[in-house]
Amino acid sequence: MAEVKLLRTWSSPFPLRIVWALQLKGVPYETIYEDLSNKSPLLLQSNPVHKKVPVLLHNGNAVVESLIILEYVDETWKENPLLPEDPLERATARFWARYIDEKVLPSIWESFTKEGKEQEEGIVKAKENLKYLEEELKGKKFFGGEKVGFVDIALGWFAYNESLFEDVAGMKVVTKEEFPLLSAWAVTFADLPIIKDNWPSRDKLIAKYQAMRDSILKE
Amino acid sequence: MAEVKLLRTWSSPFPLRIVWALQLKGVPYETIYEDLSNKSPLLLQSNPVHKKVPVLLHNGNAVVESLIILEYVDETWKENPLLPEDPLERATARFWARYIDEKVLPSIWESFTKEGKEQEEGIVKAKENLKYLEEELKGKKFFGGEKVGFVDIALGWFAYNESLFEDVAGMKVVTKEEFPLLSAWAVTFADLPIIKDNWPSRDKLIAKYQAMRDSILKE
Repeated sequence: MAEVKLLRTWSSPFPLRIVWALQLKGVPYETIYEDLSNKSPLLLQSNPVHKKVPVLLHNGNAVVESLIILEYVDETWKENPLLPEDPLERATARFWARYIDEKVLPSIWESFTKEGKEQEEGIVKAKENLKYLEEELKGKKFFGGEKVGFVDIALGWFAYNESLFEDVAGMKVVTKEEFPLLSAWAVTFADLPIIKDNWPSRDKLIAKYQAMRDSILKE
Repeated sequence: MAEVKLLRTWSSPFPLRIVWALQLKGVPYETIYEDLSNKSPLLLQSNPVHKKVPVLLHNGNAVVESLIILEYVDETWKENPLLPEDPLERATARFWARYIDEKVLPSIWESFTKEGKEQEEGIVKAKENLKYLEEELKGKKFFGGEKVGFVDIALGWFAYNESLFEDVAGMKVVTKEEFPLLSAWAVTFADLPIIKDNWPSRDKLIAKYQAMRDSILKE
């Protein structure tokens, strides 16, 4: 049997993408938890450039960067494809996944780590970014259509963290009124068996994000 | 015949990737030159999110972002594959292409738009980034092996601009002593027929980069 190992932390959203993808495809794997304040030799050796998680080890070969790992997983294990077959639809899915990493998640994080007027401005920007995704969901249950796909997995973190960020920072980005499709998507996605079973502890995450936010605001 | 159009500017390095890819694959296409200070309705409509070139129009459908277009081109026209077949090698090529966009090109641009000590520090950083690419070329003619591939096309711009930046900003990042493989690669790559035939005018580029640098330094 192929030997698959996943280097992750308990809390980081990016390795979670790989957890979901492997489980959706039914690939058995071993989890190795990393402490990023004391990185293991295995992590440093398998991702010498960025020294970050996730790292997927497959028969000893390392694949890094979550969206690149997702493509690797999709090409290696064909069940439950994440990307569609049509080249144009594949390009569109890749586009939105990159957009989520380059625009959506940074703008949400930016709002989360600010207060007052700066936070409000950040939320305006985050909403502008999310409007494209709302549009993209028109007529679809998931970004992937009837089933979870590449873009759903890329954005998945947000389906859970939106309410955590509300608790911690009193911010609300996605309201049902402004984002009816995205709101419904977040509920449906977060509640899927494989997704739901793998969320980190809500209490622990809240404590962690609270501490991170406090520390950033103090800087 | 399929209708392929490429929206580009005369000078931007990113559309050049698509020019090379289409020509390597023998795909006939029409070029539409954009003036980014006065973007055409076609550009704004086909890339509403980023409003940037390159845009590839194929039978009226838009594909944007140069690395995503390269994958689309590779999946649509199979001759002269840019990515290898093996999933692990594909992941590695995608990794280095992203690394070039996220680390290498920004660090070179950063050095180019600075002076004195700041420029020197930028060059140190750029060299650190490039060392990984030097390592990656060991035992190979191109990043793609015996033939030009995805990573060669991603880095290609540098093979030409390195000497322009030397002329304009008096900076030298890649010396033969420190980067023997990368130096040899740049010469070989820049001189390939399809690559060489599509470089923008050296004099015009020098004038443009000189003006850009002057304007940034004045800020």
